[in-house]
Amino acid sequence: MRIDIVTIFPEMFEPVIGGSIVGRARNQNAVEINLIDFRDHSNNKHNTVDDTPYGGGGGMVLKPEPIFLAVESLLQEGKRPRIILTCPQGEVYSQNKALELAQEDHLIVISGHYEGYDERIREHLITDEISIGDYVLTGGELPAMVIVDSIVRLLPGVLGNETSAELDSFREPLLEYPHYTRPADFRGWKVPDILMSGHHANIESWRRKESLRRTLLRRPDLLAQHELSPQDQKLLAEVKREEGAE
Amino acid sequence: MRIDIVTIFPEMFEPVIGGSIVGRARNQNAVEINLIDFRDHSNNKHNTVDDTPYGGGGGMVLKPEPIFLAVESLLQEGKRPRIILTCPQGEVYSQNKALELAQEDHLIVISGHYEGYDERIREHLITDEISIGDYVLTGGELPAMVIVDSIVRLLPGVLGNETSAELDSFREPLLEYPHYTRPADFRGWKVPDILMSGHHANIESWRRKESLRRTLLRRPDLLAQHELSPQDQKLLAEVKREEGAE
Repeated sequence: MRIDIVTIFPEMFEPVIGGSIVGRARNQNAVEINLIDFRDHSNNKHNTVDDTPYGGGGGMVLKPEPIFLAVESLLQEGKRPRIILTCPQGEVYSQNKALELAQEDHLIVISGHYEGYDERIREHLITDEISIGDYVLTGGELPAMVIVDSIVRLLPGVLGNETSAELDSFREPLLEYPHYTRPADFRGWKVPDILMSGHHANIESWRRKESLRRTLLRRPDLLAQHELSPQDQKLLAEVKREEGAE
Repeated sequence: MRIDIVTIFPEMFEPVIGGSIVGRARNQNAVEINLIDFRDHSNNKHNTVDDTPYGGGGGMVLKPEPIFLAVESLLQEGKRPRIILTCPQGEVYSQNKALELAQEDHLIVISGHYEGYDERIREHLITDEISIGDYVLTGGELPAMVIVDSIVRLLPGVLGNETSAELDSFREPLLEYPHYTRPADFRGWKVPDILMSGHHANIESWRRKESLRRTLLRRPDLLAQHELSPQDQKLLAEVKREEGAE
């Protein structure tokens, strides 16, 4: 996969795309990531990329031309990449969207700063608008990093331990069960006996039940989206009795 | 405000907390941000911070001791900061949560990597668990940066242009209206006439209506949470007629 990130702050991306799992994926050629500074496409002597809004009001608006030219410099003959705009008005990002985008050969991610985008960028250039959540950030850089990170980890061969990817939250919409590691007794707080029992079927059943419990208590909205197996339904009924929810 | 970020990858944070608006806020002493490497608190000769899970299964789990010791080194006599864990099992982050956290004097943000956290960290150390959205990332670093960025921009004096903060999406749950800047005609795509009219009341009404339209079409869930003024109700009724939604 090739990912091009169009930004006026390429230096903010370096340690995130160079480090850790994303950096390793690049070194293994599982992904090519390029940073493109759209200020280089401003075509005016002051290199400005924004201007005041028509109709008045505060704030600045990103001009269409530098972003169009930057994106057009990345297009390849006969191919049509997904062109993603990070903005608060977009579709709320989800693991399903990450899985969908991870199937593509070429993504272009446009990351604006705190200004708005000229509407013609939305209407005539991009294919997807994505918001990473209902909160306001100083720019589109962190959202672009979040999108890239979530996609790269899904590419074939990137996660060393396949089990980790399989056990992720949001593969199915249940939250993870509690994890414990050494020491068995930390300041008097002990690991549950069942995890020390060596009885694998009981451990699996306990974990599944605690996963259902956590989802019921914290994110009932996720549980409502999920088709439960008969065994899960039985465990969930036990949880509800224990929590006094039924 | 003081924010301490507890992480094993402090170098990933430098360009984000050093650059742009967050960097400027630090230079103006609007916020103090410290990076603490919890590997320095591992108290074993190999500096390990994770271990295999009790009960078996894949993946690694972050041990309780290094994170407890790192956090405890940051506590001040008689004060109780908010201690935030970034994880997919947490409360879904929102602008209201950012506004709430921006009132605090001291925040500690714990950012794990791709492993799980030992459950005793959740039970006995932290005050808040936050998820930035329903997608999976390679670590808690980007979520920690998102949380810090969203809070710092709300601190007094940080955003130069107060109007920009007021006009943000999510201050009230409506999406922003379309923005336009120069040129008035870009490749034959023109700015709407009304924005060139100079008639401010009409422009305000058009913008409000387009804001309602965008929210109706893209995020009806936000509209449902919002108490509309009589004027907004009238505009929304017009939008619904125009969109054939009524």
